[in-house]
Amino acid sequence: MSKPTLFTLFSPRLLDIYDVSNSIVVIIDVFRATSTIATALHNGALKIIPVDSVEKCIAIGNATPKSITAGERDGKIIEGLAHGNSPAEYPRSFIEGKTLVLTTTNGTKLLHMALKNGADEVITGSFPNLSAVCNHLIAQKKNVILGCSAWKDRINLEDTLFAGAVIHRIKEHFTIHCDSSLMAEQMYQLHKEDMKSFIRLTTHWHRLAAYGLEKDLEYCVTADAANVLPVYKSGALIAQA
Amino acid sequence: MSKPTLFTLFSPRLLDIYDVSNSIVVIIDVFRATSTIATALHNGALKIIPVDSVEKCIAIGNATPKSITAGERDGKIIEGLAHGNSPAEYPRSFIEGKTLVLTTTNGTKLLHMALKNGADEVITGSFPNLSAVCNHLIAQKKNVILGCSAWKDRINLEDTLFAGAVIHRIKEHFTIHCDSSLMAEQMYQLHKEDMKSFIRLTTHWHRLAAYGLEKDLEYCVTADAANVLPVYKSGALIAQA
Repeated sequence: MSKPTLFTLFSPRLLDIYDVSNSIVVIIDVFRATSTIATALHNGALKIIPVDSVEKCIAIGNATPKSITAGERDGKIIEGLAHGNSPAEYPRSFIEGKTLVLTTTNGTKLLHMALKNGADEVITGSFPNLSAVCNHLIAQKKNVILGCSAWKDRINLEDTLFAGAVIHRIKEHFTIHCDSSLMAEQMYQLHKEDMKSFIRLTTHWHRLAAYGLEKDLEYCVTADAANVLPVYKSGALIAQA
Repeated sequence: MSKPTLFTLFSPRLLDIYDVSNSIVVIIDVFRATSTIATALHNGALKIIPVDSVEKCIAIGNATPKSITAGERDGKIIEGLAHGNSPAEYPRSFIEGKTLVLTTTNGTKLLHMALKNGADEVITGSFPNLSAVCNHLIAQKKNVILGCSAWKDRINLEDTLFAGAVIHRIKEHFTIHCDSSLMAEQMYQLHKEDMKSFIRLTTHWHRLAAYGLEKDLEYCVTADAANVLPVYKSGALIAQA
């Protein structure tokens, strides 16, 4: 039996090139949406509703019992919302049993695009849930698209590195004819031992470190700190049992 | 005085993200359009007219004295055209003083997109004219966009490696806040000593090697084998004196 295929896309702009209809799409937004999603679910959040606008966030928050609205712009909590985008804001003592309505731009956009294009399944991944993602992809034996959310469609390194980390672990199980995947894995191999210093060279680090988020960003590249599998079902991400 | 900026785009799909209007855009299509363009001009071709369809190629060929029509699909000369896409087909004894009307898909598409978006100048680059490209970019002191032509919009490694080679040589002269550029340079640094073996891992190698083009592809990653600067002016690429 032939192995399933694996492709990596470096920007949402490239999604249309690939056939997602028979694939699991992994949404990757390392700084920080998919790191925060894994963390909140790992700490017992009931579910996470990703939304692409502040208005929707407030409306859904108002309509949902025990919900928390969250979102940032330029490192500050958006007016009208209650919390920010940092994984550190969602310990078990705070988030357990609650619904997090999370406003993000890049990750949510790609997630909705993948659903619209008919993805077979949508999950989210970042270093904190690296093993959960890898184990699921190996077990499912389906085609995989590793979708980097990028930043305003610009390719970024942190999402690429996570794609590379996944490929490094699961490549024997897939047929991979994809230069982006080859590049991602080589970048990961080159930097897996110096990840926390290397990410300081990325454009996104410079953008976010200006807001004092260095500890956050280091957490976001820490493998298996929140090892749960977020799966999108009926409008929300829930932890797969 | 602040340094000019440099960005790398890995696929034509990403061109709109960047402001090309005050930039020199370097069209990169290593396998093989921009390698063939450099070679033909280096060997004395009068000019090269890049076209995106066979029909245009034939029409312009018919209307142009001393012209050669060229283009391939699946490793064979396209019916109705006279020659192929291999740089080896264009020695001085054959091409000197002639106009090459060249049908390509990926490179020509990006070139026309860059012109349409108002690029300040469009030049072409590949390993055979690496030094000419680098020297020009340093001398001009303008913003630069290294444009990888990719393959049907899919990111490829050989174009990325050339972008990396350029960045490696000229980075001190530019302000670079671009993760694609960082990746490209690191991939080049990792493989500059084993280029001819590493390119055998790329998707495009597998596509073209099936047609017996290995020698061609090795030539296309040989630095400065045809060190000329192709500049687009009035509908054609000509060698800058």
